[in-house]
Amino acid sequence: MTFEKHTSAQFTAELEQARKHLMQMGGLVEQQLEMAFNALQNVDTKVAEQTITLDKEVNEMEVKIDEECTQILARRNPAASDLRFIIAVTRAVTDLERIGDEASKIAKQALEIADAGNGPQSFVELRHIGEKVRQMVQQALDSFARLDTDQALSVLQQDKAVDLEYGTAIRTLVTKMMEDPRMISHALNVMWALRSLERIGDHARNIGESVIYLVKGKDVRHKKLANIEAQLGK
Amino acid sequence: MTFEKHTSAQFTAELEQARKHLMQMGGLVEQQLEMAFNALQNVDTKVAEQTITLDKEVNEMEVKIDEECTQILARRNPAASDLRFIIAVTRAVTDLERIGDEASKIAKQALEIADAGNGPQSFVELRHIGEKVRQMVQQALDSFARLDTDQALSVLQQDKAVDLEYGTAIRTLVTKMMEDPRMISHALNVMWALRSLERIGDHARNIGESVIYLVKGKDVRHKKLANIEAQLGK
Repeated sequence: MTFEKHTSAQFTAELEQARKHLMQMGGLVEQQLEMAFNALQNVDTKVAEQTITLDKEVNEMEVKIDEECTQILARRNPAASDLRFIIAVTRAVTDLERIGDEASKIAKQALEIADAGNGPQSFVELRHIGEKVRQMVQQALDSFARLDTDQALSVLQQDKAVDLEYGTAIRTLVTKMMEDPRMISHALNVMWALRSLERIGDHARNIGESVIYLVKGKDVRHKKLANIEAQLGK
Repeated sequence: MTFEKHTSAQFTAELEQARKHLMQMGGLVEQQLEMAFNALQNVDTKVAEQTITLDKEVNEMEVKIDEECTQILARRNPAASDLRFIIAVTRAVTDLERIGDEASKIAKQALEIADAGNGPQSFVELRHIGEKVRQMVQQALDSFARLDTDQALSVLQQDKAVDLEYGTAIRTLVTKMMEDPRMISHALNVMWALRSLERIGDHARNIGESVIYLVKGKDVRHKKLANIEAQLGK
């Protein structure tokens, strides 16, 4: 990615720095998400605790990057794509922080499952959606790094599929609870984790939308997928 | 509220406009929240549908106000408290949009309760938390309009109480489900609505944090309540 031509090399360096930090934060959140998922699948309380601890670092990065962006706005008066870059970074940082929050919530469900004395139980739906959502986050970050609107669009498309799968998974769990009320507590833990995964998918989509805004200058939030595809000439 | 002294009266007018639109959006979201709550309490499908329809308007306001803020950043190079104002408005707009989303989700739970053929059932917890959360949103918006950090801090304090009550309400519902499995489906609908209310409380708190940032220039996100109180000299 090249920024606008600046008379000040320092300005370009500051933008580069913001991008670098965003990507570092993204890496941290991806790691947190993987840990949360492992904690849940293996009912591993140690990894769950670590996931929750890591959230502090993610939160600190949010505040740091926002402060960097504010400084750039105050001192450099960015215009055109530089301004869109700052706005897109600020939005992506918010979404990454929320993904971190949801990862922590998933880890907390792992702790509750362990507390209840339940071991790892196979929930096909959880594994499937979890895998998809992790890929979406990775691809969203990748599309930001490479300014790839095709990949960003693909994240939006995947989110629609995840929402449908989420609905099916929840209905399956409700049926299981009704068939065997002893399952209620465990099924609820899995449901909350599923809900967090679904939210993470939403945030990955938001990051994809920020990439489209950055590259195309078009705000596609709340637009229908078909309209966005048309706007991108797909 | 007075903005920084500007050589351009037009600049001041643009900032005023952004504030006016933020408050309009806030009013719309408050209305949406009240409707969602009525829809749920009375299992009123008509009001539920209207709540969901209203979300479109809220979403449009988000995009409009963000665009106004971007234009101000691009043309006016705001500094000091003007820049903090733009950042605070942008953040508050995101939170208001999410509150609107959660209000829609609550309305959807009302529709599901109606679909299942269930009538209004008294859930004390829901009414209580719902009332509190609505007050928090109102006070958060009020603190923004009046730049009142005491009131903003009060919203932060209330959020802590709501989180505790939420935990208790969820545990009560789980117990009810276990005692009477025929209640599972209905209790789940109430749980999802409670979850949305708890999230709305979080967003009201975020708005309170934005007000503190705007007035004091301090980013208090992720800080412990006691530290924030100390920072504000309480």
